[in-house]
Amino acid sequence: MTALRHTDEYATSAHYSGTGDIRCDDDRRSLTVGATFTLRSEVRLVDGVFDPATPDLAEVYRPAGRCVAVVDATVDRFHGAAMRAYFSAHGIPLTTMVCRALEEDKTVDAVCRMAAFLGGDGCDMARGEPVLVVGGGVLADTAGLACALLNRRTPYVMVGTSIVSAVDAGPSPRTCVNGTLMKNALGAYHPPVLTLVDRGLFRTLAPEHLRHGVAEVVKMAAVDDEQLFTLLQRHGRALLDTRFATTGDDPALAAVADEVLFRSLYAYMRHEGTNMFETRQDRPHAYGHTWSTKFEPVAGLLHGHAVAVEMALTATLATLVGWLDDDDRDALLAVCRDLGLAVHHPVVEDLELMRLAQETVRRKRGGTALWAVAPRGLGRCDYLAEVEGSLLAEAVDRHRARCGAFPDGGLGRDMYLRDARWA
Amino acid sequence: MTALRHTDEYATSAHYSGTGDIRCDDDRRSLTVGATFTLRSEVRLVDGVFDPATPDLAEVYRPAGRCVAVVDATVDRFHGAAMRAYFSAHGIPLTTMVCRALEEDKTVDAVCRMAAFLGGDGCDMARGEPVLVVGGGVLADTAGLACALLNRRTPYVMVGTSIVSAVDAGPSPRTCVNGTLMKNALGAYHPPVLTLVDRGLFRTLAPEHLRHGVAEVVKMAAVDDEQLFTLLQRHGRALLDTRFATTGDDPALAAVADEVLFRSLYAYMRHEGTNMFETRQDRPHAYGHTWSTKFEPVAGLLHGHAVAVEMALTATLATLVGWLDDDDRDALLAVCRDLGLAVHHPVVEDLELMRLAQETVRRKRGGTALWAVAPRGLGRCDYLAEVEGSLLAEAVDRHRARCGAFPDGGLGRDMYLRDARWA
Ligand SMILES: NC(=O)c1ccc[n+]([C@@H]2O[C@H](COP(=O)([O-])OP(=O)(O)OC[C@H]3O[C@@H](n4cnc5c(N)ncnc54)[C@H](O)[C@@H]3O)[C@@H](O)[C@H]2O)c1
Ligand SMILES: NC(=O)c1ccc[n+]([C@@H]2O[C@H](COP(=O)([O-])OP(=O)(O)OC[C@H]3O[C@@H](n4cnc5c(N)ncnc54)[C@H](O)[C@@H]3O)[C@@H](O)[C@H]2O)c1
Repeated sequence: MTALRHTDEYATSAHYSGTGDIRCDDDRRSLTVGATFTLRSEVRLVDGVFDPATPDLAEVYRPAGRCVAVVDATVDRFHGAAMRAYFSAHGIPLTTMVCRALEEDKTVDAVCRMAAFLGGDGCDMARGEPVLVVGGGVLADTAGLACALLNRRTPYVMVGTSIVSAVDAGPSPRTCVNGTLMKNALGAYHPPVLTLVDRGLFRTLAPEHLRHGVAEVVKMAAVDDEQLFTLLQRHGRALLDTRFATTGDDPALAAVADEVLFRSLYAYMRHEGTNMFETRQDRPHAYGHTWSTKFEPVAGLLHGHAVAVEMALTATLATLVGWLDDDDRDALLAVCRDLGLAVHHPVVEDLELMRLAQETVRRKRGGTALWAVAPRGLGRCDYLAEVEGSLLAEAVDRHRARCGAFPDGGLGRDMYLRDARWA
Repeated sequence: MTALRHTDEYATSAHYSGTGDIRCDDDRRSLTVGATFTLRSEVRLVDGVFDPATPDLAEVYRPAGRCVAVVDATVDRFHGAAMRAYFSAHGIPLTTMVCRALEEDKTVDAVCRMAAFLGGDGCDMARGEPVLVVGGGVLADTAGLACALLNRRTPYVMVGTSIVSAVDAGPSPRTCVNGTLMKNALGAYHPPVLTLVDRGLFRTLAPEHLRHGVAEVVKMAAVDDEQLFTLLQRHGRALLDTRFATTGDDPALAAVADEVLFRSLYAYMRHEGTNMFETRQDRPHAYGHTWSTKFEPVAGLLHGHAVAVEMALTATLATLVGWLDDDDRDALLAVCRDLGLAVHHPVVEDLELMRLAQETVRRKRGGTALWAVAPRGLGRCDYLAEVEGSLLAEAVDRHRARCGAFPDGGLGRDMYLRDARWA
């Protein structure tokens, strides 16, 4: 029996801290507290995350004495053996839950199953012990939410295995499940304490998942980093064809791949990491994520294509309001098309659906304005507080006309989601 | 179409703010962000919360143009008409979801139903629009969690209708549902932006719920406020008999009732409100909440009785380690017994169960220590990093012997939970 007195002794977890103050009114009828929560989150590029010579995961899990992991079933098929060999080489016991993680698995049930595996009835994780999550965006969202809810906050380390989970959903604080009518309706802000990005894992990604993932990179380039945009113009197609320089042997392209990932992550963390609890809506990364929240499920699109369609449409809208010239809009369309990403889909011509999307998103962003992101010059952006129906109709008209010049009308390759739920 | 530039314009909600910083390492392989989230939460004593002359609720909901409320079914039966009349007198449209809220309703399903009512498929709450939650601790926990998950954080105003939800679960950030084997296994930290406490509502509380609620007041007195303890010694029984001075007409007792509530809330907010994200475990309010997390469901006890049993046992433990003298321990037992609260139950003699509880709670508190709260002099407390099995066994032995002196062995009045789940 010992009683210790140092505040650090009492820390629930090394990853999180907090402070507070209290005010009491004179007539003893009211009290107000201010409370602050602080977290740190790191993103690291690594080569060969499951190569026993790579220390990163071992350094996290050796002190814990074990590693409890939630792993995407497809990823497990390709990389599970290497992962098991890694922990075994380091003498660290590994317990895994292998989960199917399709868009249709973004459910409360899936989250509860993961929480049961991690919690008191399962592995009985201690509260400071970081879970390991290995997978794409679906697993990042759902396992992240399971960690958020377990004991009201359990840290986790994310190995982002898809482009989306490497540069966006992985380091993201936005964990979630889908609602019946709206994607990502329920969730919590709970970023990983550490995100490891190893583009070697992209070698096994299906081409359609590589492609739609690159849409998020295009997004960050278009609204936040013109140099990244130039890299995509020059090398985007080669990166896609070589799965981020993991096939073939081109050291120069490998360096480009690292630079593209780092720039994407920097853009992400600079804006989203410093706005981790989404207390502000001036978010470049919401580019492509206003109207698509409704039309993506309606049209059954893969997320990246839905985002690309909205980015392209909003670029045309930006030309109408004088924020972008036609050449820059066309440069954006060209990058998307070069990558096989959709730049138009008839679903956006359903103006009633688009209006509904605006209403929903306006409420989701706080209820005071829409804050639709549009490029204001390439590599920069601004926020539209409102988009009147007439302006949107004009943009859609003009965008359809522009895309009519493409033989396929602006459609993308493998743009539809394969699983049943949204189709 | 307008583009605004003031940061406040972009705020997601007036209730929450955040900041962040980013560091980038020289070799462009790693990025670290620090992010901070800040909230304010107020607790206010009011008289006649549903009296049209009381401005508090109208001031919150008039600007929103409506009020969307989740209401405990029992509370609705007693106070629903007054609540509806209140909003109608203020010309504010009110939409309510009336929910059964028994301990067995602390489920993920119940939370999802509430979220569906509040969300896009239901009332389509805007993100800055505060939900109104009217009920006891069960509703505070579950509706609070629904608000936490909805759009990843929706503010709410709590009207705490039971003693527990007035002084503890109501202003609490700890929203949750029960797991299959453990209470409160899944949840989120999400306090109300405003908690209104109107002891007039206690008039309709069942005596057993009044009584078990006062256990939380005894808790705060014993470990944080000796003057509150003295008030309970003198007036506890009268407060119980008059339902916190809401029956009979004794202005002096009414003043005592307000003072007792304010002192409890001050103790609560001073420690818990300033540690809103439970980043530290030196929490006086965890008194009575270590071993009871396991034995409360096993014995089917009402929460307050379980807490009282552990408080009493831990007071005896404190005498063994020299933190408390026998007289003070006996004073605590006397206050509990005067109120009809249990001070002993044979379930604590199951030392294997008690050991298991320690293990679970140790993990829940971060995995490094147990931090069991025990009084160190009345009105103060300290934290036991460890409680060895032999020490606990000795404490249980001695406590049983002490309680053997009571004709009923230390049992409480109406101490068992009525609903089926835990019984
Ligand atoms: N939380 C956020 O901020 C955020 C941001 C962007 C996207 N998202 C979400 O992310 C999801 C899309 O992400 P995604 O593209 O990663 O989807 P995903 O998780 O469905 O992964 C796509 C497919 O690739 C497989 N896969 C993943 N890594 C692999 C690998 N290394 N080798 C072989 N197969 C692999 C998966 O099993 C899956 O079948 C959507 O649900 C979207 O809503 C969330
Ligand atoms: N989140 C926290 O920090 C925290 C703290 C303490 C307790 N709790 C939880 O709170 C719950 C116990 O709280 P509780 O005692 O309020 O339980 P409760 O919500 O079950 O309320 C007790 C009963 O009183 C009824 N009731 C509530 N207000 C009433 C009123 N004014 N008039 C008539 N009936 C009324 C309810 O319908 C219920 O039947 C437990 O689940 C416990 O785990 C949570």
